Amino acid sequence: MLKYISLLGATGSIGTQTLDIIRMHPDQFTLVSMSVGRNIDLALKQVHEFKPRLLSVQTKEDYDKLIHEVPSSTTVVYGEEGLVQVATDQKATILVNAVLGSVGLAPTLAAIKAGKTIAIANKETLVTAGHIVTSAAKKYQVPLLPVDSEHSAIFQALNGENRQEVEKLILTASGGSFRDRTRAELEGVTVHEALNHPNWSMGAKITIDSATMMNKGLEVIEAHWLFDMPYEKIDVLLHKESIIHSMVEYIDHSVIAQLGTPDMRVPIQYALTYPNRLNSSSRERLNLAEIGKLHFSPLDMERYRCMAFAYEAGRIGGTMPTVLNAANEVAVAYFLENRLSFLDIESTIEQALERHQVTSNPSLDDIIAVDQETRAFIHSLIQ
Amino acid sequence: MLKYISLLGATGSIGTQTLDIIRMHPDQFTLVSMSVGRNIDLALKQVHEFKPRLLSVQTKEDYDKLIHEVPSSTTVVYGEEGLVQVATDQKATILVNAVLGSVGLAPTLAAIKAGKTIAIANKETLVTAGHIVTSAAKKYQVPLLPVDSEHSAIFQALNGENRQEVEKLILTASGGSFRDRTRAELEGVTVHEALNHPNWSMGAKITIDSATMMNKGLEVIEAHWLFDMPYEKIDVLLHKESIIHSMVEYIDHSVIAQLGTPDMRVPIQYALTYPNRLNSSSRERLNLAEIGKLHFSPLDMERYRCMAFAYEAGRIGGTMPTVLNAANEVAVAYFLENRLSFLDIESTIEQALERHQVTSNPSLDDIIAVDQETRAFIHSLIQ
Repeated sequence: MLKYISLLGATGSIGTQTLDIIRMHPDQFTLVSMSVGRNIDLALKQVHEFKPRLLSVQTKEDYDKLIHEVPSSTTVVYGEEGLVQVATDQKATILVNAVLGSVGLAPTLAAIKAGKTIAIANKETLVTAGHIVTSAAKKYQVPLLPVDSEHSAIFQALNGENRQEVEKLILTASGGSFRDRTRAELEGVTVHEALNHPNWSMGAKITIDSATMMNKGLEVIEAHWLFDMPYEKIDVLLHKESIIHSMVEYIDHSVIAQLGTPDMRVPIQYALTYPNRLNSSSRERLNLAEIGKLHFSPLDMERYRCMAFAYEAGRIGGTMPTVLNAANEVAVAYFLENRLSFLDIESTIEQALERHQVTSNPSLDDIIAVDQETRAFIHSLIQ
Repeated sequence: MLKYISLLGATGSIGTQTLDIIRMHPDQFTLVSMSVGRNIDLALKQVHEFKPRLLSVQTKEDYDKLIHEVPSSTTVVYGEEGLVQVATDQKATILVNAVLGSVGLAPTLAAIKAGKTIAIANKETLVTAGHIVTSAAKKYQVPLLPVDSEHSAIFQALNGENRQEVEKLILTASGGSFRDRTRAELEGVTVHEALNHPNWSMGAKITIDSATMMNKGLEVIEAHWLFDMPYEKIDVLLHKESIIHSMVEYIDHSVIAQLGTPDMRVPIQYALTYPNRLNSSSRERLNLAEIGKLHFSPLDMERYRCMAFAYEAGRIGGTMPTVLNAANEVAVAYFLENRLSFLDIESTIEQALERHQVTSNPSLDDIIAVDQETRAFIHSLIQ
C-alpha cells in the first residue's frame, strides 16, 4: 500500500536521504508536501522531480521568488504557518520531521492532532517539549517513530520485547571529530577541523554537536521521552566505528543490539516501513569480517562536559532542557561564525544553565518564552 | 506460574546449569523428573536436593545400586525406556533435552507427541532427524526452543520480526582451542590441549567439536531446521571473544544481534522463561567498555574442513547428516582415548561421508540403521 509522506526539511541531510528512499521505491512511497530551508536551488530541483502538491519556504521573499518557478500543481506557502500546513496536509499519512532546532515543535504538535504518524529526526522538539509531545501522541494515539540511528536501533532492539524487562538503554557514541584529542588539545581547534566527522556525513550543526558530545546528550533526553525510561537506565558507551548503533540490556543480562554500516537511509527507511522492512539490495551490506575490530570505551564526563550538562538538565526537567538546547543552538551558530571558541561552547551553555530558574511542567508558552530569553542571553554575552 | 521441568542429562554441563537456574528460582521452576549419565555420585546429590518423582539411570547395574539410596518419593527407571519415561512425565510441561548424541532422539519425539514444550540442547537430534523432529513439532503444535547460545541469540534476534524479511543468519564461532594455529600446527596436538577452550567451560565432546569446528557445522544444520532457513542463508563468522552470540541480517541490511558474557545460564534460562525474561542480578553483566575490543574474521573452509563437510552434508540432506554426526561422535571418542590423531578426526569423517549412499527423506528406522552402520564402519577403520 502506497504511503503518503509530508517532509519538513527536504533540503537538509535527512531530508535529501528521505527523498532518496522515496525515489528508489515509487511503488511504496509518494511525497505529497514538503518544506525547505534557504537552499532554494536544490528545493526547485526537488519540487520539479517529486511534484508535491504543497511547498513551504522560509520567507515571503523566497515565496515571491519561487511562486512562478514551480509546477502549476504545487501550491507555495511560507513561514511558520507554512510548516504547519505541510505537517497537516490532509493527503499525508506520515510526517517526516527533519527540520533543525525547536522550530519543529509547533508543526509536530499540529500533525499529532491531525492524526499523522510522526517519523521524528528533529530531536530538539523532544528535548524542549518531550512531555507535551509524548502526551499528545498518547492522547491522539499517534506513533512516534525514531529516525536517529541510535533511537532506531533501540526501537528495533525492543521489537517483540516487554519494556518492563529492560535494564538499560545503551546509546553508542562515535566520539565525533575530536575523539582522539585530550581536553587540553581542544584549545583553539578550528571550525574546519570540527566539521570533519570520521563516520557520518551530516549537517554542520549536528557535526559540531557530535564533537562537543552535546548531540549524544540531546539523544539521551530524546531516549528518555521516546522510550519512557528514567535517566539512570540510559547509558552512553564510546564506540568509534559507529557499527553497533545502540543496544538494549534486559533484566536477564541479554543484550540486543542493532548493527549496520553508518548509512542514515536504513533508519529513515525503517521509520517509513515500520513494522515491515524493505529490500535494500542496492546498498552496502555490513561486513564485520572485513571491518575486523569494533572498539568500546567508557565515556568520560569530564572530557565531554556537555554530556554531564545534558544528564543534569534532563534530570532537573521542566524548562531546563529548553535552556540547554537553546543555549547550544546559539553557541554553535556563533562557533560556526568563528565568534566563539570550541571550548567556549560549553562554558556559554553552562552560564545559561546556571542562571536559569526552572519552571516545572511548563506549558508551550513557557517553553517558547524560555527559549527566546535564553537565546537573547547568549547574544548579550557574545555581542 | 510455576513451570514443571523434566531434564534429560542432569549431570552434564547444560544439566547442572539448568539445575542452577531451578535452584535460584524456586518460585518459578520445579524439577519433576531427570535422567543421568555415569556420574552416579553427583546424580545422588542432585536427587536428594531436588527430589524429582522420577529418575532414569543408564543401566540395570546403576539401577540396582541406586534404588535404595534415593528418597522414597523418587521412582527409579533405566535405559532407553527410562529416558522416554522422563521425557513424557505427565507432570512436566517442559522437557530440557541436554543429553549428548543421537540417544536424545527417541525421547524428544515421545515428548513432542505428549505435547511437551521442548528446550533443546541436544543438537545431534536435530542434525540426524531434523525433518522428523520439526514436522512432529509442527503437527503437535509444540514449541522447539533453542538452548545453544548461538541459536538462542538468533531466536532472540527474530523476536517481533517477520521471518520472510530475513536475509541471513550469521552464527558466530570462537574458533575453539586451536584458533590461533595454522593447519600445519595441528599435527600432533594433544587431547589436553584440545580440551582447553578459551571462552566456554563445556563437556569434553563439545569442546573437541569446537576445536575441529564440527560444533559450528552441526549448529549450521541445527539452525537450518530450527529456523527453516536454506543453507545459503546461513553464514559463519569467526569472533574470538564469544560476546556477540549470533546475529540476523534483514533485507533492509539492519543486523540484530544478541550479546552477553559467555554464560550458558542466560540462554538456558531464556528457553525456560520464554517469552518472558527473568531477573539475573546475581550474575555478571556485559561490560563492553571493559572488554574494549571485539574481533571478527572470515571463516576459512580449508582450515576448518569439518565446516565444509557439514555444509555439504546438510545440502545433500537425507541420511548424510546422520553419517556426519555418527562418524564424528565415534571419531571424537577415539581421539579422547588417544587412539586417533586430531587431524584424523576429519579424514575419518570424510571416509564415512564418501562411501555413503544417501537415502532421501529417511524414516526413523533408516536413520537408526545408518547411524549404527556408520559407527561400525569407523570402529572397523580404527581397530
